[in-house]
Amino acid sequence: MPYVNIKITREGATTEQKSALIKGATQLLVDVLGKNPATTVVVIDEVDTDNWGIGGESVTKLRKAVK
Amino acid sequence: MPYVNIKITREGATTEQKSALIKGATQLLVDVLGKNPATTVVVIDEVDTDNWGIGGESVTKLRKAVK
Amino acid sequence: MPYVNIKITREGATTEQKSALIKGATQLLVDVLGKNPATTVVVIDEVDTDNWGIGGESVTKLRKAVK
Amino acid sequence: MPYVNIKITREGATTEQKSALIKGATQLLVDVLGKNPATTVVVIDEVDTDNWGIGGESVTKLRKAVK
Amino acid sequence: MPYVNIKITREGATTEQKSALIKGATQLLVDVLGKNPATTVVVIDEVDTDNWGIGGESVTKLRKAVK
Amino acid sequence: MPYVNIKITREGATTEQKSALIKGATQLLVDVLGKNPATTVVVIDEVDTDNWGIGGESVTKLRKAVK
Repeated sequence: MPYVNIKITREGATTEQKSALIKGATQLLVDVLGKNPATTVVVIDEVDTDNWGIGGESVTKLRKAVK
Repeated sequence: MPYVNIKITREGATTEQKSALIKGATQLLVDVLGKNPATTVVVIDEVDTDNWGIGGESVTKLRKAVK
Repeated sequence: MPYVNIKITREGATTEQKSALIKGATQLLVDVLGKNPATTVVVIDEVDTDNWGIGGESVTKLRKAVK
Repeated sequence: MPYVNIKITREGATTEQKSALIKGATQLLVDVLGKNPATTVVVIDEVDTDNWGIGGESVTKLRKAVK
Repeated sequence: MPYVNIKITREGATTEQKSALIKGATQLLVDVLGKNPATTVVVIDEVDTDNWGIGGESVTKLRKAVK
Repeated sequence: MPYVNIKITREGATTEQKSALIKGATQLLVDVLGKNPATTVVVIDEVDTDNWGIGGESVTKLRKAVK
């Protein structure tokens, strides 16, 4: 019955990668806590890089600074 | 003062249906706990079916499997 | 498959009231969007009044001001 | 190491305004609790006005009523 | 830089199990998306069984019904 | 009408510090976006250090390693 929410920046994760996150997170709850996968929910939020900050700067600015 | 977050898959919920969710969730808090509706907030998140998983599979795949 | 999160201040909601919130929120999703109740999840968070603010003040202070 | 999530209605917040929210929220955690800004994460969610309700009505309807 | 939130019912998960969830969720983001583990945050919420519902019933009631 | 959620580790934040977070986050939304403070909600979650991970380790372990 667990609920897992994964937030990542929106930078081109593919459908296959998102499927792998869903499968992997569900399996993790099965392996560690013996949870029932049938009622384990995973929700992925993709967030624009303008809307995600770390160290006081948006990821958009951080990406530019690294180039 | 309650805050209610409703997450559903993005599959064509209409403006009227979303209004009904807002009205119904607010009324629920009034009826059960006597909360003040004026400061009750409801936020609806619509999530792409690629980004929602249950049973280790994305809803996109589950919908296809059922067809 | 919806997920509903209800946040309220921790001020003595009873087990019966919390059951009523779970039942009512689940029924709302059934009535409005035809969702399957069997996979509808409701999570209630009870938050200390020191940790909830509105209008820039904690609920603890607002409650005292009203007395 | 704090995590801050700011939810606002999607009504034209600019990139500069969102940068100011990120910077300000990060600084708040530094000033009040002495947290390390380098690992402070801020995520801004912009929510459609149809999907945000207060007082049992969507913000879309409330905006129209005010006009 | 991802943020992962895992919500489970409060039913005796040990410190070791919670460490395994943190390690596993972080590794999943590294493996699938090449994310930097150093800035990957995992937060586990343990929720009372009275406060978690599925199928319109609290987990507390569901556990009793199964006995 | 914004909603701000601040998650911090549970490590002794005082009532005064939490009041300062509520006041500061509310003022930030007023200053940057001209939001109405009367309907701005701030919720602070304090999370046990066993339940918060970064870099694949719980904060409990990280704190011990630093000593």
